Amino acid sequence: MDIFEHGLAEREQVMDFVIIGGDAAGMSAASRAKRTLPDLNVTVFEKTMDVSYSACGMPYNIADPNRRIEDLVVRDASAFRAKQNINLLTGHCVERIDPAAKSLGGRSRDGKGFEFSYDKLLVATGASPVVPDLPGFDLPGVVVLKSLDDGRKIKDFLRINAVRRVVIIGMGYIALEMAEALRARDIDVDLVKPRPVFLPWLEEQMALVVRKEVESNGVNLFLGHKIERIEKSGDRLKIVCPNLTLEGDMVLAAVGVTPNSKLARRAGIKLGIKNSIAVDKALRTSNENIFAAGDCADVFHIVTGQKTWIPLGLRANRAGWAVADNVCGNEIELPGIVGTAVFKVFDLEVARTGLNRQEAEKAGFDPTEVMIKTRSRAHGHPGSSNIWLQMIGERKSGRLLGVQMVGKEGVAHRINAPAVALHGHMTVEQFSQSDLAYAPPFSPVWDPLLTTANQLLKRF
Amino acid sequence: MDIFEHGLAEREQVMDFVIIGGDAAGMSAASRAKRTLPDLNVTVFEKTMDVSYSACGMPYNIADPNRRIEDLVVRDASAFRAKQNINLLTGHCVERIDPAAKSLGGRSRDGKGFEFSYDKLLVATGASPVVPDLPGFDLPGVVVLKSLDDGRKIKDFLRINAVRRVVIIGMGYIALEMAEALRARDIDVDLVKPRPVFLPWLEEQMALVVRKEVESNGVNLFLGHKIERIEKSGDRLKIVCPNLTLEGDMVLAAVGVTPNSKLARRAGIKLGIKNSIAVDKALRTSNENIFAAGDCADVFHIVTGQKTWIPLGLRANRAGWAVADNVCGNEIELPGIVGTAVFKVFDLEVARTGLNRQEAEKAGFDPTEVMIKTRSRAHGHPGSSNIWLQMIGERKSGRLLGVQMVGKEGVAHRINAPAVALHGHMTVEQFSQSDLAYAPPFSPVWDPLLTTANQLLKRF
Repeated sequence: MDIFEHGLAEREQVMDFVIIGGDAAGMSAASRAKRTLPDLNVTVFEKTMDVSYSACGMPYNIADPNRRIEDLVVRDASAFRAKQNINLLTGHCVERIDPAAKSLGGRSRDGKGFEFSYDKLLVATGASPVVPDLPGFDLPGVVVLKSLDDGRKIKDFLRINAVRRVVIIGMGYIALEMAEALRARDIDVDLVKPRPVFLPWLEEQMALVVRKEVESNGVNLFLGHKIERIEKSGDRLKIVCPNLTLEGDMVLAAVGVTPNSKLARRAGIKLGIKNSIAVDKALRTSNENIFAAGDCADVFHIVTGQKTWIPLGLRANRAGWAVADNVCGNEIELPGIVGTAVFKVFDLEVARTGLNRQEAEKAGFDPTEVMIKTRSRAHGHPGSSNIWLQMIGERKSGRLLGVQMVGKEGVAHRINAPAVALHGHMTVEQFSQSDLAYAPPFSPVWDPLLTTANQLLKRF
Repeated sequence: MDIFEHGLAEREQVMDFVIIGGDAAGMSAASRAKRTLPDLNVTVFEKTMDVSYSACGMPYNIADPNRRIEDLVVRDASAFRAKQNINLLTGHCVERIDPAAKSLGGRSRDGKGFEFSYDKLLVATGASPVVPDLPGFDLPGVVVLKSLDDGRKIKDFLRINAVRRVVIIGMGYIALEMAEALRARDIDVDLVKPRPVFLPWLEEQMALVVRKEVESNGVNLFLGHKIERIEKSGDRLKIVCPNLTLEGDMVLAAVGVTPNSKLARRAGIKLGIKNSIAVDKALRTSNENIFAAGDCADVFHIVTGQKTWIPLGLRANRAGWAVADNVCGNEIELPGIVGTAVFKVFDLEVARTGLNRQEAEKAGFDPTEVMIKTRSRAHGHPGSSNIWLQMIGERKSGRLLGVQMVGKEGVAHRINAPAVALHGHMTVEQFSQSDLAYAPPFSPVWDPLLTTANQLLKRF
């Protein structure tokens, strides 16, 4: 599918492949392009000094004062330069793209301007944490967590200051992972957000299970409190809401991320959902010589067939590879995502794939669903714990639409079976016939997924 | 598909549904039939006194002297009788079926003969452990493990006797699970078998990983020793091989199981692979009024399209349900299995789905495969361990044929993703595009399954 109708790409000779952004999508594209065509000139402009690190690992690293944030670096800049012969320019911020001239320009950390021309360009500018436009969010001690540098700042702040309490604004998975990380350092944690519902995308009873787990680990949750401002209060910071005031030594704003698409938009490139850069399945933007990949770009959702925007690491890596393949002449299209995600919070694993009820309705399906609570291991097997599952299907076609799961064990990997079923457009009935693994330490003879599917079948 | 060409079944009125065998397949058929048609007369003949127990849980129960073997009973006989109004006759051994008269006969424990007629019959006679036809296998202290009564005998033997060493003949998953169970009770364990290869169905390097795990837990493995006989040796038992003699206080024969199909064969019912009862996808035997399900019956393998015989619990339960549905007039066909299996041995999880190389070649595929060793968690995440994967695909079509996995964590449930892919006849390329869950505590950003698929793609 070529949503921009560039026509068939001629196999022209690409000499200069230029990439803006040296994170997951950018560096995986650079590496793969160099492996495929060693003679290709590959240049990466990265505005920070860090490339190729495990961003998702930061909360776990912050949890442990004895680990260095640099332990998260998978490959440092010099290795990309020396071993792979990639022209990696860190500390280089691209400020403009001129698609007509196939060139770009910007400024490096030492203040020098630069100009560069490309044959093919990849915009892999990622996403940025949303910082509310409210008074006090620029105060020292108010932090965000997205880049390695953000993680470094938080770790430094915790090392230098006597932090006894942190207020986190937001209750998404980064907020929850950070709550756990800070509790591991014996720091008190308050979480506050304007919306009244905890994990609104998760089935109500399952969200309550997660909420209890968070609260039983000494984290205070304040829902339905609109934040008005942050104020200095002696050595501390005060978060002011109409009917609530919270105080902490540090404030983490974790209210979500937004795609870094301004550079592309200014160059006349078409944006899509939630201001992300619109790409086709070959990762091409509305300009045939410019690709976009990773958190700055949109993606097809296989279940809805519509575009969506979900910033996740696997998708970024995969898209980076696909861009490299297309630049190198090995035409490839990515089918898209099914919306699989997992996070750990204290002793719970929380996972989802596909659509929840609201998303299914919004996409025009007529959904029906079941929620069950069962056990993680076989009858009578020691160490068994509760596991909750919700499964959603389309009433008319019987098609599987989505699964959610919460439990202490066997959740994170279990979600991958229905994820593959969604890729295969399976019905709930087909999925219910899956030959899933059984041994007493790992599941009941009917895996909880099958029990849920069997229950859902009765609703059709 | 109706391999026996009975033609379309008329929806006749079934009054008497009779089941031979009160284990997984039999009792799940009985329960489901009663739920669907409460007026149906459902009679179950079970030769032992035990029904509905977790047979696979026995090694774990035996591991713990403080647990009663009866803890494995999911539902006792009286509950089936009182709550479900199932005519459950334990201690009743069926000795003959007369398909022409639609009747059966046998003898109960008290020596009385019985005769019974049926409209529809389910043969769910299960499988029996193979006992080698060699001298000494009938000595006291030589045990097998299949029925709850076998488990009871082993537990009683261990309680009454001062068992310091057990010799297990065989090295399949029951042998290995029992080795672990006995080591947990601080009993020395020797495993001996005639064939020279440890876990021959598993990729060689991966089998070596499992072997090292078993040996490092103090279990002695003796491969390539043909057993000649068992002898009494004072209070102990002596296992005599041409170049080896082992001594133990107990001997467990765990050399495999064989389907209990003699009763069906004598009634003129067609047998299939490995002497199991041949059934079509509706679980009908060569006699249109007689079904077979569970360990006594064969099954379609979705990957090969051929019949196979794999005695596993999920398949038995599922087949029992399908028989009930067909008896009750809700015609259903089961697609079959993909050969998924998992077991735990000490700290390792071992799993497989689909075909291994030998099976793929035998089935007429032209297979190619990769084996990789990677890590169970994200780069730099604490608690990560090694994980080994093998993936097999068909060279010409690129179709996924099978996956094997060994590791300390994330193996048992991870195998279900490729299992679903096999149900969907996916190619390795399609599977490699799966949107699998990622968070640092659970996997690298590219799940080991995806890394393996990406490597295998290079072989096509």
